[in-house]
Parts: sequence; C-alpha cells; structure tokens
Amino acid sequence: MRIIGVQNFFNKQKEKISRELTRFLGQKQKDLSLVHSLGHDVCDRLMAFVLRGKMMRGGLAALGYSIFKKRIPEVITMGGAALELFQAALLIHDDIMDRDLTRRGADSLFYQYVRLAEKANLKEAFHTGESLGICAGDLGFFLAYELLSAMAIPEKMKSRLNMLFSSELSQVVAAQMSDVYWGADEKAIISEKEIFNLYIYKTGRYTFSLPLMCGAIIARASETQISLLARIGELLGIIFQIKDDELGLFGEEQQTGKPVGSDIKAGKKNLYYYYLFYDKTYPAQEEIFNLFHRQELSTKEIQKIKDAVWELGVQKKIENKLEELAGEAGSLIEGLPKINYQSRQMLYELMNYNLKRTA
Amino acid sequence: MRIIGVQNFFNKQKEKISRELTRFLGQKQKDLSLVHSLGHDVCDRLMAFVLRGKMMRGGLAALGYSIFKKRIPEVITMGGAALELFQAALLIHDDIMDRDLTRRGADSLFYQYVRLAEKANLKEAFHTGESLGICAGDLGFFLAYELLSAMAIPEKMKSRLNMLFSSELSQVVAAQMSDVYWGADEKAIISEKEIFNLYIYKTGRYTFSLPLMCGAIIARASETQISLLARIGELLGIIFQIKDDELGLFGEEQQTGKPVGSDIKAGKKNLYYYYLFYDKTYPAQEEIFNLFHRQELSTKEIQKIKDAVWELGVQKKIENKLEELAGEAGSLIEGLPKINYQSRQMLYELMNYNLKRTA
Repeated sequence: MRIIGVQNFFNKQKEKISRELTRFLGQKQKDLSLVHSLGHDVCDRLMAFVLRGKMMRGGLAALGYSIFKKRIPEVITMGGAALELFQAALLIHDDIMDRDLTRRGADSLFYQYVRLAEKANLKEAFHTGESLGICAGDLGFFLAYELLSAMAIPEKMKSRLNMLFSSELSQVVAAQMSDVYWGADEKAIISEKEIFNLYIYKTGRYTFSLPLMCGAIIARASETQISLLARIGELLGIIFQIKDDELGLFGEEQQTGKPVGSDIKAGKKNLYYYYLFYDKTYPAQEEIFNLFHRQELSTKEIQKIKDAVWELGVQKKIENKLEELAGEAGSLIEGLPKINYQSRQMLYELMNYNLKRTA
Repeated sequence: MRIIGVQNFFNKQKEKISRELTRFLGQKQKDLSLVHSLGHDVCDRLMAFVLRGKMMRGGLAALGYSIFKKRIPEVITMGGAALELFQAALLIHDDIMDRDLTRRGADSLFYQYVRLAEKANLKEAFHTGESLGICAGDLGFFLAYELLSAMAIPEKMKSRLNMLFSSELSQVVAAQMSDVYWGADEKAIISEKEIFNLYIYKTGRYTFSLPLMCGAIIARASETQISLLARIGELLGIIFQIKDDELGLFGEEQQTGKPVGSDIKAGKKNLYYYYLFYDKTYPAQEEIFNLFHRQELSTKEIQKIKDAVWELGVQKKIENKLEELAGEAGSLIEGLPKINYQSRQMLYELMNYNLKRTA
C-alpha cells in the first residue's frame, strides 16, 4: 500500500471541498439574490473568503473517514464543506470582536463592508460594516447547517451529526466568551485548568475532535473508536494551540502572518502567560507583567519577555507539557483498534506536524 | 366543538413552551458551565430573555399543527421552543446592530454585558459587551438547532425541517442586510417591490409561514395545504408589518413601547416612506423629507409628517393595500381544503388580530 503524505492528502481534499463550496454557494446565491442584491453579493464574499482557507477541518473529516473505509465518498466532502463554512462564520464574528482588519491575506469580511459603507457614503460606516459582518457570519452558520441537512446519509446518522455539531459549537462559543472576557481583563488571574479548558473547547475539540468524529461516524466506526478519536483530537488540538502561542511569541512575521508581539499586546492569557506569572518570585516579573497589554513594544522589550521565558524555565515547562501530551496522544493512536498501518501513520504524521510546525 | 379564542390558545402554548425552554436551557447550562462560568451565566440570561417574549412563533407552530390534528404533542412544543430561541438570537444580534439598549422591558442582552464589563473594569466595556452579545446570539442559534435535532419525529421529517429552517433563516439574514444598508443610507431610493421583499423575508415568511409550515409538516398535511399556509403566512406577515409601521407613526408610546417618532429618526424605509416620497409633486415634500433621519424632532414636526400622510392620501393607499392583502388571505383561508370550522376561525381571528392590533 502506498503511503500518501498527510499534506498531499489534505491538498487533494481541499480541491474537492472547494468544488463543493463553489457549487453550493453558487446555488444559494440564486435564492438569496431574490431577496436583495446584497444577498447575491454576500455569497461572492463568503465564497472568496472560505476558498482562501487551509481547509484543515474539512481535510480532517476525510481523514477520520479514511481511517475506517477506503474510498472517500462525496458526502464526506459535503461534511467538510459544512465544517469550512462554520469555521468561516466563526472567524467573521471573531474578527469583529478582535477588530482584526485583515484575515487570510485580505480585508477581513466585516472590514470589506466598512469600506463598502464608506464608498457609498453610509452613516456610521464602521458600525454599519460591523453590522453587515454580523449578518454575514450568521448566514454562514445557516448555510453550513443547510449543507449538513442535505447530506445523503441515513437520516439517523444525520440527526446524530446535527446534534454533535450543535453541542460542540455551543462549547466553542462558551470558550470564546471566556477568551473575550480575559482579553479585556488586564489583570486577570486564571488557572492552568481554565487555560486548558480554553484550548480544549475553543480549539481542540472543535478543530480536531469534531471533524475526525464526523468522518468516523459516517464510516460507521465503533463507539470505542469514536471516543478514542475524540480524545486524540483534544490532545492534538492542545498541542496545536500551545505551538500557536509559541509562534506568537517566537515566530517570524513572514512565517506566521502575525506581527511579532501581537499576542503580548493583546494580553493573551495563554500557557506562557500562566507559567510566567502564576508564581511571582522572580525579581523582574513585575516589569515584564507591565509589558503585557501595552500597545507599543520595542524590540528590546519583546526580547526581555523572550529572555524571561528561558530564564524562568517556562520554555522547559512548555516542552515537558508538549512531550507529555504527545506521549498520551501517541499511545492512544497506537491503541486504536482495527485500523491499518497507513491510517495510523497519517495520525502520527498529523501529530508531528502539530508539534513541529513553524507557520 | 368549543371555540377557543386565538389569544387563549397562544397563552396556553406559551406556558408549555416556557417549561420546555426552562428544562432544555437548564440541562445545557450544566454542560456549558464545564467550559467556563460565563457558559453558566449566559444560559441564565438567555432563559430570562426568551421567557419574556410573547412566543407568537411558538404558538403559531402549534396552530399550524392543530389545523390538521387534534391533540398537540410534546414535539410541537419543542419545535416552538426552537423557534423562540432562533428569534431570541436574531433579536440579540439586531439590538447590537441597532444599538438598542432595551428590549422586552429590560436591558438588551448585549447591553447587560456592557454593564457587566463596566462593573468588572474591563477594557473597552462597550465593545466587550457587543462581543459577548455576538457570542450569546451565536449560542442561541446552536442551541435552537440542537433542540430541532432532538425532536422525536421521523428522521426524514426532521431533515426536512432542518433544511426549511436553514433556508428560511438565510433569507431573513439577507433581508436584514438590506434593512441595515437602507437604514444607514439617508437618501436611499427604494422600490415598492424591495419594501415588500423586506416584509416578506424579514417578517412574513419567518414569523408566520415558517411556524405554520413547521406545525403542518409534523401533522403530515398535504403539500398543497403546506404551500397554501406558506402564502397565507406571507400575507399575514405583510399585514403585521404594515401595521407595525402604522403604529410606529401613529401609536402611543405606552401601548407600543417605542418612543413616538423613532421610526422617522431611524429613517426606516417602509411603505409610508415610499408612498410619501416616490412621486415628488407635493410642495411640502422636501421639507418633510428632511425631517427623516433627524435625531431631534419636535411634536410639531412629527405632526407635520402625520398630516402629510393624510393629505397626500398615503393613509388611504395603505388602507387599500391592507384590504387587498386581507382579501387574498381571506380567500386562501376559505379555500384551505379539508380543515374544520374551528381551525378556519382561528386563522381568521389571527388575521383580524394583525389587522386591528394597537400594540
């Protein structure tokens, strides 16, 4: 059996999902243009936005299926397309909350509307843009659910998926609320458990467990296999998120697409933050603490934080944590019953990608 | 057979739906508090908010069912509860867009979060409140879909309902986008057709057709009956909305809950606006036109607009339009095949309520 690299596999899925999204959004565009020309326009924008994504979630649904069954059917591509629409809608709303003006290498969706409102001389262009952005995100959710409901799978399976998506997405929102709250609370004291909850519910389960489970359910995997995949997904997600925080601190702008120090300026309450400040015995801690949430940071100040991360042993703690998580994930992957060598390899590859990614 | 007045019928449904919402949100509250305490808190707020509604949509789902079958089952109550959660979520987002600080006799949901953020000394309290409000609305959508998926009805019927809800809600959003756009465009020229599209898609189909169809589908009504109900719903919705505009202009604050002249200040592009300005031959029109969008209006200025509505024959045109719509709705109700006397009476009563309501 030929080993397909996980990257090749994802690229191939992305192509298929893109075709499905183009078909579906083109069809909805006809319906929505009957309501108003903005209904036509928003489909163009959603299409352009969703097609610019990496489509990791859609790819993971296919991976979750391919662990158990060989030929990936059309319906998995539809599920993947739904996942990508949900993700697009969440990002559209996130960008309003974070006031992010760019996303996926272009104006973020709400900001496209701000510009449109400015051009048309509308009242309160910024707020009007935000409002149209809220609408565009809501629309993304409804379209995603419509795709889910149109999947040609047994009705009972569809109900289960609908329920699973809804309950996972509810948890994503609850986690997002804590993220918004902490981001606005300059002096928040948060526990390690709260941070891990944020990682599990905002990223882990939603980005990894949900797609993998979705594929596995459609492939009629056993309940044991499905719950093992759910936990593997959580672990992969936590690893992914910790690496995200690391890249936010040490990554180069050309690679990550985020300006150096942006997480510090935003005062992100991540694991680095926790390990830096949970135990204040280091003399320079107070000074470093005051750098968080600052809107202007010099290269020297950023370097000071980086130094502290090393000197206080934070980086070592992070690496130990990553090792521990990878250990648990590895043994769960090893223990997944009745799957072939190739699928196991793909899961390992995915874990290693999460552990080693630099962008 | 005893005739139950439509108001009694709705009150009884509201009681049942309230119990269902209390049960469901209580259960979800347990799940979401595992993520973060804000997940617990938002369920309390959603519960208080949704229970304060009139629950017309939930009642209409029961009415749509009761036209065809006698005993209203639990599952209709669940569908009604889902409708009410969707409506709550849409209102939460609407209030952010319109910057409405009060709703249903209390602080609007996002504004509750603004106050919470102020109290906790969070950064940018207003924006943080809006962000948490966006989250709360999103959560409302996911919870509503979860309720829909949990309904104990044949799976195929459930898929159909899911699809119907999603496509109707997509249209609501497209209509909302045009409403936002026109509201921000002081000098917008809109056609009668565009206004009717707004009425049909933002109010008519969603508030009346969708619930009636939902009930009728579960009662296994024929496809002819379902499409007749859909059209009756559109007509009832247009009537409802035109009366809303009339109350916005002529209603008393104690009865409508809206300050006199608020629609004029907001520059609402409704049928009154269209009939007032589509043909500019009346000498005082320019002066009246300039009163729209003004943030301060004297009683005398409001009176000027009211006078113009009479003098230009706008009120007469509106009444003719209402009569025409009621005529079409009446003959469709008359023609609904195979339904009993009592159900037909309820539909007439509903139409008359929409025609004559003063609050």
